[in-house]
Amino acid sequence: MASLKSRLEHSVTAIALRSYLAEFISTFFFVFAAAGATMSSRKMMPDAASDSSSLVAIAVANAFALSVAVYISANISGGHVNPAVTFGMAVGGHISIPMAIFYSISQMFGSVMACLLLKATTAGQHVPTHAIEHEMTGFGGAVLEGVMTFALVYTVYVASNLRPVSGGAIGPLAIGLIAGANVLASGPFTGGSMNPAYSFGSAIVGGSFKNQAVYWVGPLIGAAIAGILHDNVVFPAPVPDPFRGNADGVGV
Amino acid sequence: MASLKSRLEHSVTAIALRSYLAEFISTFFFVFAAAGATMSSRKMMPDAASDSSSLVAIAVANAFALSVAVYISANISGGHVNPAVTFGMAVGGHISIPMAIFYSISQMFGSVMACLLLKATTAGQHVPTHAIEHEMTGFGGAVLEGVMTFALVYTVYVASNLRPVSGGAIGPLAIGLIAGANVLASGPFTGGSMNPAYSFGSAIVGGSFKNQAVYWVGPLIGAAIAGILHDNVVFPAPVPDPFRGNADGVGV
Amino acid sequence: MASLKSRLEHSVTAIALRSYLAEFISTFFFVFAAAGATMSSRKMMPDAASDSSSLVAIAVANAFALSVAVYISANISGGHVNPAVTFGMAVGGHISIPMAIFYSISQMFGSVMACLLLKATTAGQHVPTHAIEHEMTGFGGAVLEGVMTFALVYTVYVASNLRPVSGGAIGPLAIGLIAGANVLASGPFTGGSMNPAYSFGSAIVGGSFKNQAVYWVGPLIGAAIAGILHDNVVFPAPVPDPFRGNADGVGV
Amino acid sequence: MASLKSRLEHSVTAIALRSYLAEFISTFFFVFAAAGATMSSRKMMPDAASDSSSLVAIAVANAFALSVAVYISANISGGHVNPAVTFGMAVGGHISIPMAIFYSISQMFGSVMACLLLKATTAGQHVPTHAIEHEMTGFGGAVLEGVMTFALVYTVYVASNLRPVSGGAIGPLAIGLIAGANVLASGPFTGGSMNPAYSFGSAIVGGSFKNQAVYWVGPLIGAAIAGILHDNVVFPAPVPDPFRGNADGVGV
Repeated sequence: MASLKSRLEHSVTAIALRSYLAEFISTFFFVFAAAGATMSSRKMMPDAASDSSSLVAIAVANAFALSVAVYISANISGGHVNPAVTFGMAVGGHISIPMAIFYSISQMFGSVMACLLLKATTAGQHVPTHAIEHEMTGFGGAVLEGVMTFALVYTVYVASNLRPVSGGAIGPLAIGLIAGANVLASGPFTGGSMNPAYSFGSAIVGGSFKNQAVYWVGPLIGAAIAGILHDNVVFPAPVPDPFRGNADGVGV
Repeated sequence: MASLKSRLEHSVTAIALRSYLAEFISTFFFVFAAAGATMSSRKMMPDAASDSSSLVAIAVANAFALSVAVYISANISGGHVNPAVTFGMAVGGHISIPMAIFYSISQMFGSVMACLLLKATTAGQHVPTHAIEHEMTGFGGAVLEGVMTFALVYTVYVASNLRPVSGGAIGPLAIGLIAGANVLASGPFTGGSMNPAYSFGSAIVGGSFKNQAVYWVGPLIGAAIAGILHDNVVFPAPVPDPFRGNADGVGV
Repeated sequence: MASLKSRLEHSVTAIALRSYLAEFISTFFFVFAAAGATMSSRKMMPDAASDSSSLVAIAVANAFALSVAVYISANISGGHVNPAVTFGMAVGGHISIPMAIFYSISQMFGSVMACLLLKATTAGQHVPTHAIEHEMTGFGGAVLEGVMTFALVYTVYVASNLRPVSGGAIGPLAIGLIAGANVLASGPFTGGSMNPAYSFGSAIVGGSFKNQAVYWVGPLIGAAIAGILHDNVVFPAPVPDPFRGNADGVGV
Repeated sequence: MASLKSRLEHSVTAIALRSYLAEFISTFFFVFAAAGATMSSRKMMPDAASDSSSLVAIAVANAFALSVAVYISANISGGHVNPAVTFGMAVGGHISIPMAIFYSISQMFGSVMACLLLKATTAGQHVPTHAIEHEMTGFGGAVLEGVMTFALVYTVYVASNLRPVSGGAIGPLAIGLIAGANVLASGPFTGGSMNPAYSFGSAIVGGSFKNQAVYWVGPLIGAAIAGILHDNVVFPAPVPDPFRGNADGVGV
């Protein structure tokens, strides 16, 4: 067991700092495309919220951008791009708590910056925030977001587990695709965030924290269950190295 | 030839139980996204059944979610996610009959749970069931579903056959893409299920077993023919190991 | 240099016959999805021919289905799925003339059968045929189809050239994606066939041979130029083996 | 350090000339599909500029075509397909200045030829040019294009960096997907070019150089920053070989 001091030292090495930067960059690009696609749809169609082709546009942007965001940071930071993924990895002991905190801060900062940039360059378009459908309960929304985040984090675990050659190569793609599929399934209900950093950034810049708890409680619980179930039940493995999350890729 | 007793013992080992759990999880995620996307489209557009962009949304959700569902279970259960695939593998001798039954039960259970969750969280939205276009005959529908399942199961066979490095890596993707293409081709005619577990789960929760036979007879026959044709005619190979279906991936 | 007799013998071996069957199956699945998606769109929207979301549905069906059609036959027949590809491979000396003829017959037969099945099962829906936009000249249409087939066949050549590990793995995907992109570019102009077998099958079953020449002349010339340019100018290589087309995959 | 003379000699070898041809072909195919999809959408829908499904069509064409354009030239020229990528690679010292100039000329020539072909074959359809939304400032547009090009070029850098087996295989796909995601995010704002050659070709043939500077200044600055950040901060590596850009693939 590493001591607290060694863990903290571990979290400020050159490679750790580069990991935080990589998470910042990846989350920035992901939120830029995901939130940008929502803004584009609303710009084109005033009633985009009830239009199937806008849902396709947003889901495809999520899928494509998350695949690439994971791809470009997988070999340096593990390609989390999402505090829920980082939390799920911490629960499984694949990243230390101090590093997980720095990861999450980097992700939230990246998300806020992406939303600010969108607001600044698009001539005052409103940055849309995540919100649940008006007939749904907050509990129902949290369960929906939690189940979808479970699927996402479970996929991340499988992708990290595979050796690069056999299947690992398409890991970042699989992670993006499950996010896109879930956005298609949940669009008009919760918006399909699965990512507290994304919801936080758009809430800060969009100026509304309504339903924010839904996008934190659900995903974090779903992520934790995914990590526990994967490591202890479906793929029980030798004791993991607590620092593996860093420098060890998602199988890219 | 393994005796019945050894086969049954084989079907309750730790790895066999983990395979059933993996099939449950994968089918749950797949049906959640596929049925959820249909519900989202109908929520957004009252006339989604005659709207091309809804068809795209549903087909893309099928393609993305099935790719990932196969990907995450390929290395443990072979990534069937579908009783027709399991049946097709049993016909070819790649999985024992007792295991195939447990696989199918796990898949159907996963599908029912996914539909229940969708119904519970989306504030009483109706879970859509598969049904054939009103002018079509049940026979025509079964043939259409059978041919599409043939394509799906044949692709699964090819993917299992390839060594991981050369082409196997994109096997789960190929399986998802053929499902998506077939949904686009058959959407307004049969809905493009190719999966008895999916049709069963939505029928249980949606409350209508109309045309249910179409979604069992067609796919099971199509799957059997695919297995026989692949192993005996197109890629005749050495005698297969009856237990290969387990722990042997779809080439991931 | 192989004699004519040995070439003919080569074209009726067990593996050659299995190659023809593989081309039949692949072309059947491809045309089923591509023509089926067009029929689905028209069933849903009477004015599908001037609807962007129908174009997306058809293009995605082409991309997904062609990727899989190439994937499932790549290791046995090379995954041509298209007489223009076979012709382009014959021009480059990668398949013998007798085999190329049998390949093309298998592909055309598969296409006809797929269209017949669609007509028979969909309660009398019309099978759509390829036709050029009314203001375009036949020459313009042939040039457009020829350029797009050039892109397709050039991609097939590159995919066959790569060793499995490095890039070859996604070869079938690349082939499908360029077809889908070209359908998006040419949909309202020529329909984006790039495949004489597809145009032939739908013409036979749809009952109209109008513009048929456009879909043969353009693609065959484009394919020939792609083969010559690839092998002699961009990637000049050692003398190829005339029988390499068989049993040698598209890099899967 | 290579002398100017040896650099110039390096830029006219047989392999260098084949690289220029490969860039010409790839850029031709990419612009053909991307501009063609825009023309198809406008042909089908007069108000395509405010239609989500047209945005999806154009974005998917960009993603699919760029993936393939990179794929087919990666092993010969590195698969730049874009003067901004070439500039970003030159900034990082991965391609010599003379070669970068020849690359860019080949790309611009390919783009012009693709637009000319589209204009000539589609019975006088107008070739659309890139332009910023009327309420946006040129500075805002350049920033938006610059940030998106940063994402694109950063992805190209990561893809070139990975060894073929582990993740490199899907490099061309990742490059196409980030382009597609960015088009979805920026469609109604700047059109999402990220490629000065594409904007230049459509401007020449479309006959309007309005906003042209936006599509050069933003992308070139974004590309330069991506190269510097990748090589010096996130992935600091041994001194690169100035000629690596040639014959060294994007990891295919």
